[in-house]
Amino acid sequence: MKAIGIAAALLVSAASAQHFQRLGTCPTLGCVFPPDQADFLAGQYFDIRLEVHAPKNGSEVIGLPPDEKFTFTIAKGDGEAVPVTEFFKIEEPKMENWTFTWYEDLFARDAKTPSVVDVRAKAYRRLALYEPGEYTATLHYNNGSTTSATWIVRDLAEERKAKNIILFIGDGMTTNMITAARLIGHKSVNGKYQTTMQMDKFPVLGHQMTHSIDSFITDSANSASALYTGHKSTVNCLGVYADSSKNPFDDPKVETIAEIFTRLTGGHVGIVSTAFIADATPAGLTAHTRARSEYGAVVDSFLNGITNYTWTEWDGPDVLFGGGAEQFYSPELGGITYQNKTYYDEFANKGYQILQNRTSLLAAPSDERALGIFTVSNMAKWLDRNVYRDNLNQSLSPTGDKSAALDQPGLKDMTLKALDILQTRSGDKGFFLMSEAASIDKMMHVLDYDRALGELLELDDTIKAVVNKLNETDCLKETLILVTADHGHGFDVMGSVDTQYLAAQNTDRKKRDAIGVYQNSGLSQYQNTGNLTYTDSNFPRNWDPRYTLFQGLMADPDRRENWSVRKDGPREPAVELEEDSDDYYANSEDGEGGILLNGTLPVENDQGVHSLTDVPVFAQGPCAEIFAGVYSNIDVFFKMATCFGLARGEAPAEK
Amino acid sequence: MKAIGIAAALLVSAASAQHFQRLGTCPTLGCVFPPDQADFLAGQYFDIRLEVHAPKNGSEVIGLPPDEKFTFTIAKGDGEAVPVTEFFKIEEPKMENWTFTWYEDLFARDAKTPSVVDVRAKAYRRLALYEPGEYTATLHYNNGSTTSATWIVRDLAEERKAKNIILFIGDGMTTNMITAARLIGHKSVNGKYQTTMQMDKFPVLGHQMTHSIDSFITDSANSASALYTGHKSTVNCLGVYADSSKNPFDDPKVETIAEIFTRLTGGHVGIVSTAFIADATPAGLTAHTRARSEYGAVVDSFLNGITNYTWTEWDGPDVLFGGGAEQFYSPELGGITYQNKTYYDEFANKGYQILQNRTSLLAAPSDERALGIFTVSNMAKWLDRNVYRDNLNQSLSPTGDKSAALDQPGLKDMTLKALDILQTRSGDKGFFLMSEAASIDKMMHVLDYDRALGELLELDDTIKAVVNKLNETDCLKETLILVTADHGHGFDVMGSVDTQYLAAQNTDRKKRDAIGVYQNSGLSQYQNTGNLTYTDSNFPRNWDPRYTLFQGLMADPDRRENWSVRKDGPREPAVELEEDSDDYYANSEDGEGGILLNGTLPVENDQGVHSLTDVPVFAQGPCAEIFAGVYSNIDVFFKMATCFGLARGEAPAEK
Repeated sequence: MKAIGIAAALLVSAASAQHFQRLGTCPTLGCVFPPDQADFLAGQYFDIRLEVHAPKNGSEVIGLPPDEKFTFTIAKGDGEAVPVTEFFKIEEPKMENWTFTWYEDLFARDAKTPSVVDVRAKAYRRLALYEPGEYTATLHYNNGSTTSATWIVRDLAEERKAKNIILFIGDGMTTNMITAARLIGHKSVNGKYQTTMQMDKFPVLGHQMTHSIDSFITDSANSASALYTGHKSTVNCLGVYADSSKNPFDDPKVETIAEIFTRLTGGHVGIVSTAFIADATPAGLTAHTRARSEYGAVVDSFLNGITNYTWTEWDGPDVLFGGGAEQFYSPELGGITYQNKTYYDEFANKGYQILQNRTSLLAAPSDERALGIFTVSNMAKWLDRNVYRDNLNQSLSPTGDKSAALDQPGLKDMTLKALDILQTRSGDKGFFLMSEAASIDKMMHVLDYDRALGELLELDDTIKAVVNKLNETDCLKETLILVTADHGHGFDVMGSVDTQYLAAQNTDRKKRDAIGVYQNSGLSQYQNTGNLTYTDSNFPRNWDPRYTLFQGLMADPDRRENWSVRKDGPREPAVELEEDSDDYYANSEDGEGGILLNGTLPVENDQGVHSLTDVPVFAQGPCAEIFAGVYSNIDVFFKMATCFGLARGEAPAEK
Repeated sequence: MKAIGIAAALLVSAASAQHFQRLGTCPTLGCVFPPDQADFLAGQYFDIRLEVHAPKNGSEVIGLPPDEKFTFTIAKGDGEAVPVTEFFKIEEPKMENWTFTWYEDLFARDAKTPSVVDVRAKAYRRLALYEPGEYTATLHYNNGSTTSATWIVRDLAEERKAKNIILFIGDGMTTNMITAARLIGHKSVNGKYQTTMQMDKFPVLGHQMTHSIDSFITDSANSASALYTGHKSTVNCLGVYADSSKNPFDDPKVETIAEIFTRLTGGHVGIVSTAFIADATPAGLTAHTRARSEYGAVVDSFLNGITNYTWTEWDGPDVLFGGGAEQFYSPELGGITYQNKTYYDEFANKGYQILQNRTSLLAAPSDERALGIFTVSNMAKWLDRNVYRDNLNQSLSPTGDKSAALDQPGLKDMTLKALDILQTRSGDKGFFLMSEAASIDKMMHVLDYDRALGELLELDDTIKAVVNKLNETDCLKETLILVTADHGHGFDVMGSVDTQYLAAQNTDRKKRDAIGVYQNSGLSQYQNTGNLTYTDSNFPRNWDPRYTLFQGLMADPDRRENWSVRKDGPREPAVELEEDSDDYYANSEDGEGGILLNGTLPVENDQGVHSLTDVPVFAQGPCAEIFAGVYSNIDVFFKMATCFGLARGEAPAEK
C-alpha cells in the first residue's frame, strides 16, 4: 500500500490549503465565483458563489460586522446591470454563514497565530450563459465596496468537425522527458534517429500554460479541470471553484466536456488510467469537489454523476478502466467506499461487465459497458510488469482477497479495448476517450526516472497502436487525437554516469568524477531491440547498462543518487527516522554506492514536486491545426468543444 | 575579465576532448567523414576525410601495421562503385600520418594509461553532390575490412519562397525558461495573462532535437553548425567534422547557410550577438575549425572567409555587432588577435564603419557595412544596463583603453540597426540575419537565473520590435522569422521562496520551510509595469520582491542558494579554495543567508552544464508551416535552405 501512502501524504499536506492566502481567487473582501476573467462555453452549466469576508483579527481587519445585505448584479455588454435573480429568472437562495482560519505567512504559522474570517455567502445553482460576449458581474458589499468580474462567453461555431476525440494525458510529462524517453527507446546512428516516437510524427505542436488560478504551480486536479471545463481553479479542486466553506461538496461547479458532450449529443465516454481510478485526472471528468481526496464520492460520480444538487444527468461512461479496487470492493474486505457500498455491485446492477485481470479484459465483449479494475491502488508499472516481474508479488488483487494482482493489463491493452467498446457502442454518436499514463508523474515524484520513462514509452506505444487501429478501421480521419500533459515536473538529462566508476570511489567528491558531460556523455547505452515480454515496441533491452543517464529532478528531498535502475520496485528516496515526525532524510537503503545529496524542499516532503513549465500538445486529425502555437490549458477545452461543436447560442426549449 | 575566464575554463575542459571515445564519429578502425547517415543540400560544398587507425596498445590492438593502401569508392544509388578520384574527377591527395592518444575510461585516466593510435589519412577538398538521392561511400582497409557510409542528398525545391530570413537564437533557451520569463514579465489576472510573449504569438511551433553526433549533449559550437550546415558534429566543432589530427584547421569542412546563400544568390548577411563576437553561435556562420577557442581565426573568417584552402569566396557580412573587442584592438593594447593584426583596421580597410558605443550605433548611416564592437568580452546584461548600472564600471571599453564601456547597446538596438542596414543594402537580393541572445546561456551557466531571464525578456522584446518594424515597412510578409535555441539547460521553476523567512532561519533544514510549492507558490510578485530606463516593454519592475521564484538548474557545482537577485553583477556560485586546483567549493560570498547545497558535477566545474531536452522553434512568415512538428536540429538548415531555394541539382557551368 506504499503508493497510497505516498499519494495520501501529498494530499494531506495539500489539503491544509488555506495557508498564506485568505482565499486564492479573492484578494478583496468581496468574492465572486466564477471570478474576473472567467471564460465560458455558450450553454455550459455553472454555479455562482458569492462571499463577503469580515476578518476578525490580523492585518485585514476593517472593523465592520459581516455584511448580510450584499447584492449582486449582472450586465450583458454595455447593457443595464440587473439583479442576478432577474437576469437568470431564479429565486433568491438563503444566506449561509461560516468562519475559517488561515495563516498570513510562515512567521504567523510558526507563532500559531491564525487569522479568523467571518463569512456571509450565497450560491446560485446550475445556470448557463448562451449569448456570446462580455458580461459584467458585480458584487456590492460593505456599504459601497464592489467586486467586479468580467465574464466572457466565447463565440464558437456550433458545427461539429470531429466525430471522436481521444485525449491522451501523460501526467506530468514534459518535453524534457519525451527527449529522454526517445534517447533510451530509439536507436540513433551518427546523430540520426532510425525510429522516432509516435508523438514525434504528429503534424501539429502546441504548448499549453498549466498554472493554477491562484498559484503558478498546479496539481493534477485543477489542471485536469482546466483541460476538461475551460476554467482554471485552485490546487486539489475538481470541476469547482474553491469557496471558503468547510463542506467539500458545496463549491460552485462548472460543467465538464464529458458532461456537455453526453448531454448535448448523446456521445459516448471512456475513461482509462493507470492510476487508482479515483485519482485526479480521471476524476476530473465527472467529479465536482474541492477535495480530490474524496475518493469514494469520486467513484460514485463516475456511475451516478452529481446527486446532491440538480446538475447534468449522467448515467456512467461506456468504459472505466484503471486501478484503485479499494474504492470498489466491500468494506468487509477492507474496502473504503462511498456510503459503504460495494461498487462492483453498483456498476454490475447498472449493466456493466466487471473485469479484474488482463485475460478477462482481452476476452470481454465489445458491445457491453465495462468496468475494469485491475489492482488495489495504482497499477503496476511497465518496468515491473515486463522486466522485474517479481515485484508484482504483493497483496493487491482487485478482488480484495489479498492475493497478488499478477495478471494486470498495461495502458495499451486497456486503451485498445476501450476503443473497441466505444467504436462498437457509439455508432453515429461518436465518442470521447481520455487515456492517462498516470505513473509518469507518480514515478517522477519518487525520483524513479527509469520507471517514469518506461511509462512514457508505454504511452507512446499505446498511441502508436491506437493510430494503427484507427487506420485499419478507417476511423483515423474522423478522430482528433491529442497528446498532452497536465503539468510539468522539473526534469532533464545532463550527461551520463559511469556507474561502475561511481561505485568504486570512496568519497562523494570523487564519485562526482563519474559524471560525464558534453562530449563525455557519449551515446545512449540502452538498446531498443530484443526479447522483452513486450513485443514489437521501442523499449530499452538493457535497463542496467554501465553508462546510465545523468538525470534528475530539481526539487528534491534528501536522497542518495546512484543513477541506476531500481530492480526491487519503485524507488523510495527519503524516509522518516521517527514515525509520523514529518521529518524526512535520505533513505539509507536507496541509492547504494551513490552520492548523498541534500534536498531543497521543506523536510516534510518525501518526494519531488511539480513545476511551472509549459507542456507540449501534439495533435492530429480533424481540427488539429487549431492546436498550434502557445495557449492556456483552458483553451484545450475550448478547442475540443469547438471540434465537437458543443457551443449553444440559445437556451433549449422548456421541457 | 571574469566572463572570459569562465568561458575559457569551459573550453579548456572541453578541448581535452579525446577522452573515453577513440574518435566519436568512428567506432571502427576505418573512418569516413562525412560519416554514415549524413545529409547534404544538393550543391553544398564539403570535404572528405579518410582515416585508418592502428591502435598501438589498449583494448583495440589488432596486430596490424598502419594500412597505407586503403581505397575509397562512391556509388550513386544502385550504380557501380567507382574510385573517389574518378567519381569527382579529382587528383589523389598525398598520404598524411600522425598519432593521437585517448583514455578508454575513467579508470584508465586515473591510472594515466592512455591508448595510442597510429593514423594514416587522406583528405579530398571542396566537393559537392548535385543529384538528389542516396550515395554509398566505402572505405576498404586492413586487407578486407570496410566502413560504409550512406550519404543522402535531399531532394528539395529550388524555388525561393522567402526573400529574407531572420533567425533568432536564444542560446540555451528552453520552453521552461520561456514560461518563467513570462511569469515575471507579464501580468496575469485569475490565471489569465493580460499580455503574452511575442514568441507566444507565433502561429507555428516545432521542437528540434539538439544532440551531437557522438554525444547526446551538445555545446553551442556544433549545435550552431547543425543549424547552419545541416551536419551534426562533435563538441567544440564549427563547420567541420572532427578528425583526429592535431591541426585544428584541417578538419573536413561543410558549407554554411551564410556561405551558400551569398555564393548562390548574392544575398546579404548580418550577424548580431550579445556574446564576444568570436563565440560559437556567431562564429558558426563563417568559421571552419574543430577548436571553437581559436577566436582570432574566427574573427578573420568573418572578414575574409577560409584562406588556408580553396573554399567559398567570402567578403564579409554587412553587419557584425557584438562584444569581444580583445580580438580587434592592437596587441599593443593587450589585444589577442589573429597574426597580431588590428582588426578594427582590417575591417575599416574593407570599407566598414567602426562603431564602439550605442550612441554611434544609433547614429550610423544605413547604407554602409558596419562593424560594431561594444565591449571587451561578453556584453553587459540587460539587468546591469537597466537596473544595476553601477556594475558597468569595469575596464571593458572596446577601444582597449581600460576605461569603462558605459554606453553599450542592447540586443534590440543592435538588431534594429542591423535590419536597417540589411534592408537598405540588400535590395532585391534579400538578407539572412542571425541575432543571438547569448547570455541566456551564459547566465544560466553561473546559476544567475535573474540575469538569464532578463536576457530572455530582452530577446522577446527585440522580436516584438523587429516584427513591428517589418510590419511598418511592409516587409513582414516576405520575411521568415524563426526563434529557436541551440540546446537546453536543465532549468525549471517549482514554487516560490519567502526570502525574508529564509534569511531569518538558522539551520538549512529549517530554511527549507521557506520554499512554497503547489498552492503555497502563490502568484508572481514581480510586476511588469513601471518606470524602468527601458520603456514600453514587459520587464519586471521589482527584481527583488520578498517572494521570489524557487528555481534552479539540475546540474550544479557546490553552491549556496538564496533565490535572490545578485545586485553586484553576475553570480559566481563556486570558487577554488586554492588557485589552479580545479577543485571548486561553494563561494562563501555568494548566496548570503541561503541553503548550502552540494553539487553533482565533477568538482572541477564552477558552473552548470547543458541538457538533453528538445528546444522549441517558433516560426512565422513564408514557409513557416514547414517548421511544425518534431525534427532534428539539422532540419532547421534544410528547411531554411528550402525557403531560400538554395538546392542546386546541377553543377554550375565551368567558368
